[in-house]
Amino acid sequence: MKQFMILVCSFLVAANGYSQQQLGRRPQVKSPIINVDGTVTFNFYAPTAQQVSVTGDFDEISSKTLNMTKQDNGVWTATTAALNPELYSYSLTVDGQRIVDPANSYVNRDISTLSNIFIVTKSKDDKGHLYQVNDVPHGTLSRVWYDSPTLGQQRRMTVYLPAAYDGKKRFPVLYLLHGWGGDETAWGDLGRTSHILDNLIAEGKAKPMIVVMPNGNPTCNAAPGWWHEGMYTPDGNAFRDREAKASMEASFMDIVHFIDSRYKTIAKRSGRAVSGLSMGGGHTFGISRLYPETFDYYGLQSAATMMALGGWLNSQDPKPDAEYDAQMARLFNSKPKLFWIAIGKDDFLMQQNTTLRQYLDTKGYQYEYYENDGGHIWRNWRIYLTLFSQKLFKE
Amino acid sequence: MKQFMILVCSFLVAANGYSQQQLGRRPQVKSPIINVDGTVTFNFYAPTAQQVSVTGDFDEISSKTLNMTKQDNGVWTATTAALNPELYSYSLTVDGQRIVDPANSYVNRDISTLSNIFIVTKSKDDKGHLYQVNDVPHGTLSRVWYDSPTLGQQRRMTVYLPAAYDGKKRFPVLYLLHGWGGDETAWGDLGRTSHILDNLIAEGKAKPMIVVMPNGNPTCNAAPGWWHEGMYTPDGNAFRDREAKASMEASFMDIVHFIDSRYKTIAKRSGRAVSGLSMGGGHTFGISRLYPETFDYYGLQSAATMMALGGWLNSQDPKPDAEYDAQMARLFNSKPKLFWIAIGKDDFLMQQNTTLRQYLDTKGYQYEYYENDGGHIWRNWRIYLTLFSQKLFKE
Repeated sequence: MKQFMILVCSFLVAANGYSQQQLGRRPQVKSPIINVDGTVTFNFYAPTAQQVSVTGDFDEISSKTLNMTKQDNGVWTATTAALNPELYSYSLTVDGQRIVDPANSYVNRDISTLSNIFIVTKSKDDKGHLYQVNDVPHGTLSRVWYDSPTLGQQRRMTVYLPAAYDGKKRFPVLYLLHGWGGDETAWGDLGRTSHILDNLIAEGKAKPMIVVMPNGNPTCNAAPGWWHEGMYTPDGNAFRDREAKASMEASFMDIVHFIDSRYKTIAKRSGRAVSGLSMGGGHTFGISRLYPETFDYYGLQSAATMMALGGWLNSQDPKPDAEYDAQMARLFNSKPKLFWIAIGKDDFLMQQNTTLRQYLDTKGYQYEYYENDGGHIWRNWRIYLTLFSQKLFKE
Repeated sequence: MKQFMILVCSFLVAANGYSQQQLGRRPQVKSPIINVDGTVTFNFYAPTAQQVSVTGDFDEISSKTLNMTKQDNGVWTATTAALNPELYSYSLTVDGQRIVDPANSYVNRDISTLSNIFIVTKSKDDKGHLYQVNDVPHGTLSRVWYDSPTLGQQRRMTVYLPAAYDGKKRFPVLYLLHGWGGDETAWGDLGRTSHILDNLIAEGKAKPMIVVMPNGNPTCNAAPGWWHEGMYTPDGNAFRDREAKASMEASFMDIVHFIDSRYKTIAKRSGRAVSGLSMGGGHTFGISRLYPETFDYYGLQSAATMMALGGWLNSQDPKPDAEYDAQMARLFNSKPKLFWIAIGKDDFLMQQNTTLRQYLDTKGYQYEYYENDGGHIWRNWRIYLTLFSQKLFKE
């Protein structure tokens, strides 16, 4: 084996010979470096660049750009203030061109944009620990194709099965919906769903559950590159002008029926929850009104509550029509176990959510409300998933 | 919905305001562009750079670097010669720094290195078509954790279930092993396994089969970032000095037992094939000798045939010992349906494979041999998977 590895190493050096020659005395660069004092250092080799910076979500609520300083060896460097435990995203900007850090092979895609990630953790009780892979039993994460008769398509979804899933015991199901521009990979990759659920379940904080993350765009079948449209440049609007046979909400029971037929589910109301972020929060709200006795738990995260369905389209003119009133009455008279609304103080959809809460208050409908710092960002959606999943299936 | 999208667009422009300001009159860049004449154009904005090039596998057997030319708007550009149908990988080098193309969100990781990919296809019969997602029934791709009693670990594997898998009918299984520095994601991501199998099965060229892609490193549990060692920089040697409880080959039946218990398999010799590339080819060869009546099909791809097991460690001194002779006799006396050796003319492991073939010839053992252009590269391993999978489970 040692002999084989020496051969492989020689081969790799030879195969990369072209770049070795170009690089000359190019210094070895490590980036990012999480320092013992909680600061994080970024390094990037760019001897001819005039301006290099690193942009990331280094404070609680928004992006922050740090100018990097060029050292004599051509390596630019910058160090953050001490960071709280969290999963962070960042990219580099070199003379106006945004790129990912080539020294960091951990990358997430959001629509068409790649960003690097890293995790800061200090104790077993913090968010960094919750978002990383720990030595606990792990669930299965699958990319599954299903048939949607309503949309006339074969479509792709992501399914998380808890570690305890053995094909015999039945488990409840959380349907988890992505936002505008997202797809069936978003909650797993950006939302760290399997990490959060593995850890919460291992700690006994969440019940073992199946999590279903469908694709919420009725005009395409799957994430970019994973259906027959090929490797187009992802764009939230890419398929806006294409006619969908039905809305996400109208086709949603295709998903529920498939999941109940394929997996060992608790196929009744008490075993079903639905939650989504932004556009997916709008889908969740629509689903709550279309199928009021199908789910016991609803979670609206930074939700686009004014999205179509039921007539109340305009949050500037909050006069619900009779259909909307009737849907809401049916929903809340069916007494769901939880109707949860979560949003950040700076979210651009705050007004819509306030309008919805005022309506619920006027009518005396029961709901729970959670408000925190920040806006329309994945950092908040990971928090909302963490909180919401712990409220489910406990009775 | 339209109102919501206008809101979202306004929000995204505001959220990215920092970069808009920095960019000034930064031109919109599209890259790569696959031109109608089969050439491919790369574009990259770097107004201050002194040298920009693109390196990719643009000819049949090796990497090629094209110098890019700077235009007045700060965008560097280069165009390849007309390319044959294929999946191509490339990266950019900016003044000695290798980076991925920020205009292309399709990226593969190989050990610690990210590269962009694109596909050229001209007809339904070419490799580009075979490697892309077509409008055919799709199998399920899962990241599955299993228990390995031999290694004393919970370990991760990738499992492809064909589209026809319904939990009732039984299917044969191909075990597909990665090379040095790889992990359980390699065959799916770099090898396009699910794309190749979906397409070959849809065309009736390969039998529907389960494909199991385990992690072949007994000193770690899973791919980088997916086990409790955290987000280290991937390195083929990272865990070399760690003591493994057993070798990959010695622990291999843990995988077979798990697969036969979890899935509807044809759990006998005629329903089992094993194949691997490089180190995984060495694993395949070791497995063929340790468990000679377990598999009916063996595929050695660019195999490290001199890897440990059975005493014949040194290909420079090809004197097999008695244990090796006995293993080989048992293997070939058991009459496997296929013992297939594939390697490229320029492969750095050619001598070892020649030595093995001379041994097989001397002994009169039956095998098939396939030799093509090129060396130790993923382009060849996709070809070998394509050829090998069509030879399986047909009797």
